[in-house]
Amino acid sequence: MSKTNAGNFFEDFQIGQVIKHATPRTITSGDQALYTALYGSRFAVQSSDAFARALGYAHAPVDDLLTFHMVFGKTVPDISLNAVANLGYAGGRFLAPVYPGDTLSTVSEVIGKKENSNGKTGVVYVRSTGYSDDGTEVLDYVRWVMVKKRDVTSPPPDAVVPDLPAAIDPQALGNAVPLLDTVHWENDLSGSPFRWADYETGEKIDHVDGMTVEEAEHQMATRLYQNTAKVHFNLHTESESRFGKRLIYGGHVISLARALSFNGLANAFHVAGINGGRHVAPLFAGDTVYAWSEVLEKAEIDGRSDVAALRLRLVATKNRACADFPLKDADGKYEDGVILDFDYWALMPK
Amino acid sequence: MSKTNAGNFFEDFQIGQVIKHATPRTITSGDQALYTALYGSRFAVQSSDAFARALGYAHAPVDDLLTFHMVFGKTVPDISLNAVANLGYAGGRFLAPVYPGDTLSTVSEVIGKKENSNGKTGVVYVRSTGYSDDGTEVLDYVRWVMVKKRDVTSPPPDAVVPDLPAAIDPQALGNAVPLLDTVHWENDLSGSPFRWADYETGEKIDHVDGMTVEEAEHQMATRLYQNTAKVHFNLHTESESRFGKRLIYGGHVISLARALSFNGLANAFHVAGINGGRHVAPLFAGDTVYAWSEVLEKAEIDGRSDVAALRLRLVATKNRACADFPLKDADGKYEDGVILDFDYWALMPK
Amino acid sequence: MSKTNAGNFFEDFQIGQVIKHATPRTITSGDQALYTALYGSRFAVQSSDAFARALGYAHAPVDDLLTFHMVFGKTVPDISLNAVANLGYAGGRFLAPVYPGDTLSTVSEVIGKKENSNGKTGVVYVRSTGYSDDGTEVLDYVRWVMVKKRDVTSPPPDAVVPDLPAAIDPQALGNAVPLLDTVHWENDLSGSPFRWADYETGEKIDHVDGMTVEEAEHQMATRLYQNTAKVHFNLHTESESRFGKRLIYGGHVISLARALSFNGLANAFHVAGINGGRHVAPLFAGDTVYAWSEVLEKAEIDGRSDVAALRLRLVATKNRACADFPLKDADGKYEDGVILDFDYWALMPK
Repeated sequence: MSKTNAGNFFEDFQIGQVIKHATPRTITSGDQALYTALYGSRFAVQSSDAFARALGYAHAPVDDLLTFHMVFGKTVPDISLNAVANLGYAGGRFLAPVYPGDTLSTVSEVIGKKENSNGKTGVVYVRSTGYSDDGTEVLDYVRWVMVKKRDVTSPPPDAVVPDLPAAIDPQALGNAVPLLDTVHWENDLSGSPFRWADYETGEKIDHVDGMTVEEAEHQMATRLYQNTAKVHFNLHTESESRFGKRLIYGGHVISLARALSFNGLANAFHVAGINGGRHVAPLFAGDTVYAWSEVLEKAEIDGRSDVAALRLRLVATKNRACADFPLKDADGKYEDGVILDFDYWALMPK
Repeated sequence: MSKTNAGNFFEDFQIGQVIKHATPRTITSGDQALYTALYGSRFAVQSSDAFARALGYAHAPVDDLLTFHMVFGKTVPDISLNAVANLGYAGGRFLAPVYPGDTLSTVSEVIGKKENSNGKTGVVYVRSTGYSDDGTEVLDYVRWVMVKKRDVTSPPPDAVVPDLPAAIDPQALGNAVPLLDTVHWENDLSGSPFRWADYETGEKIDHVDGMTVEEAEHQMATRLYQNTAKVHFNLHTESESRFGKRLIYGGHVISLARALSFNGLANAFHVAGINGGRHVAPLFAGDTVYAWSEVLEKAEIDGRSDVAALRLRLVATKNRACADFPLKDADGKYEDGVILDFDYWALMPK
Repeated sequence: MSKTNAGNFFEDFQIGQVIKHATPRTITSGDQALYTALYGSRFAVQSSDAFARALGYAHAPVDDLLTFHMVFGKTVPDISLNAVANLGYAGGRFLAPVYPGDTLSTVSEVIGKKENSNGKTGVVYVRSTGYSDDGTEVLDYVRWVMVKKRDVTSPPPDAVVPDLPAAIDPQALGNAVPLLDTVHWENDLSGSPFRWADYETGEKIDHVDGMTVEEAEHQMATRLYQNTAKVHFNLHTESESRFGKRLIYGGHVISLARALSFNGLANAFHVAGINGGRHVAPLFAGDTVYAWSEVLEKAEIDGRSDVAALRLRLVATKNRACADFPLKDADGKYEDGVILDFDYWALMPK
């Protein structure tokens, strides 16, 4: 039996199977500093202990997407080492604040499986849950990936496709945010006078700025998350691939777009739920990422007068400014340059 | 009203106007680790809790220029997003030690304003003050920037040009340094036997070493400081600029030159005052930075027998070694390769 | 007398000479975060406070090679600034766990010296010891370097070549590991079911994955360690060297290979001893590093039923996969692509 991990193939996954992933990871202020250096995130709650404490946090929580990447990274060696594509996300909920010093680990359950008609690959659905060291659930989400079969002659399993929500119910949001004393929310410090009431459904915001990505940056980010997907790191093999170069981790794009969205959504301090997400096209080093957002929906949360929710579509492009809000053409195909179509709930002070 | 920040134009600034900047930022040991990784700074006081504590610090303070960059970075979205050039610094004073865990915020006051004769731009002078979360002033300095007018037809304001000191009075230095028990200052550990008495006015020191800068490095640094100036990050737009590439944040050059100056000034452990500074020419990724220093002045500080001050001119070059101390030619023009002319006070143990 | 450090030449070293190196350095969780971002190390003991505490550590220790690089880096300005080559390592022992917050300093003793027959260079042997701030020895090792003579006419000294062990006695291992309560060692979390008993002498393991190195990465790493060797940082001078480019710090290769070895040796959580090491060929940015290991020897440690030792040969290559375990050709010469031949003791739970 080989001592190295060759990853799992389509046949290896069983409905109901539970996988406890390596490596547990204590998140530190060093990780948060790197996160800031890699994306330039400027949300006040995550940047300042003083700002966070005045509102009612113990101190500044780490960026929500840092938590997401840490929880996600652990699943790669077991779930997606032989993945052809990361197809989508759904049902992501941030369930508790994560602070430096917390140790995160991840457990996944296989909840769906369906062979593709080509007989060579199949789709595997997993629900992954991130836990803090005291057993608190901090995040759960579903993703589905296209995975190679080990043996093209193995018979197809019974198809099981889970019923996934189109969006998280807003009443299920906000568990990662203590009740906030928003009288201490200073707009000058947070970077914007615009609160939840100032946004309207259908409103589109061009986030204006662009950020060029370097190989060293995305490699450092992806290693920080202990994500081992080979395509991000190995020029020697990737130079023979169809792209001829290293592919940037899709989560890196989400974090860049989210950081860019500060300019226009500075008070959208918390990613509370991930409704869905699609990596429309690959990103490579040297490309410049831009982003725009659309307000899809507004929702209040029962029992909370401090914060409310905006459902946002966050679109990222490469080498294309977003003043004209590029998305899909008349045929419903994504326009050239669009790389990410991400649907999430953010919380804002009222 | 747009939700994105388009920055302020010349007409937007009013004498006496006070701007409280976003984003408050807790400095951590993660930021200091990144600072070391980005510049290779080796000053013992900032590197070692044990060394700093033996002298009388609570523990190791962060590098003074890390504090400077953090305080400066916050001002960019409000002061210099539409700046054509960062013209100069004056009157910079480091007022209290900054330790990991301190949260910094910045407030600026507009203290001068003068339209340029071309009618298209003007110079704005601001005094920016960095505060710790308990209200302690940790740094203040003046900078002036050339800013575009929103409307070339708007009438020129009354010119107000502040009276700025050519240099900080040495008696005003040292507030960021507790009284030190310098019997515990070990030259072996600090890296040099040369103390304040060993330097002479007029003495020039070639710092010998050179450091090549990469795009990923200056981008990570500048994002760490949450400095949002567009020219540092966006290859897509900058490839159309007069340089055709991304411009490196001037503060990155100051930090590189300061780190290089360890070789020759290892005991100049503290930047106590910034008298002035000029970015003579731009730096780009791939360039190699060298530096040399001249001792401009020596001064004792009343009531302190532990430390005294050296006024230093720190000159940085690109792609040119500094054995011949390059500065200005016979016509008073900066020589090719000179990129920084920086005038500061450093403290050294006696 | 020059205020800058020109480094020591062969004549400057005396047998028995003791050198206390600058700069003492407090290791923090920021350094560990950068270490993870630079190499992608995934060993559970160093990644998780919770995992480490359950076993009996105070909390997660830093990666052993981070300690090594920090202790080593300090020696460069005094020992190897004028080195032509870093010839070898021997007798390396990790003597105490290092935790974030510990301050490390290094003292070296010159233990050997021998002029080369060309009369231009000589070999200097030093034993370097890393100390924590309470005086605890955390690491010692011997290295020997080829150093230029200051004056080719100076007479050769009496040759003194120290007697160095071919390998550390396994009974001397394990001081940096408290007695572990290995009932809490969860294989799922550590990433492998294979314990010490599952490995056999002579067994070879291809670590499969490859990692491409960027200039920004190795520069940030080497500066983090405050290692000042010029060849790693200065493109302006190195473009005129025989390689025409910057050379990557050899220790960066060791850390990359060690991190890659997780895939196959996930439970080899601790580098306990360095028997020897040779940098066979240089590594440059853009190259992709692969690695394989051979189990050279197995040893139990008296008085310990928790862990035991594997002596491992760790071989790294560039731009060459390791499925065929490349090492030496029929003439005993290293094969093309081999860059590191490293012999160390690792500890594993039984």
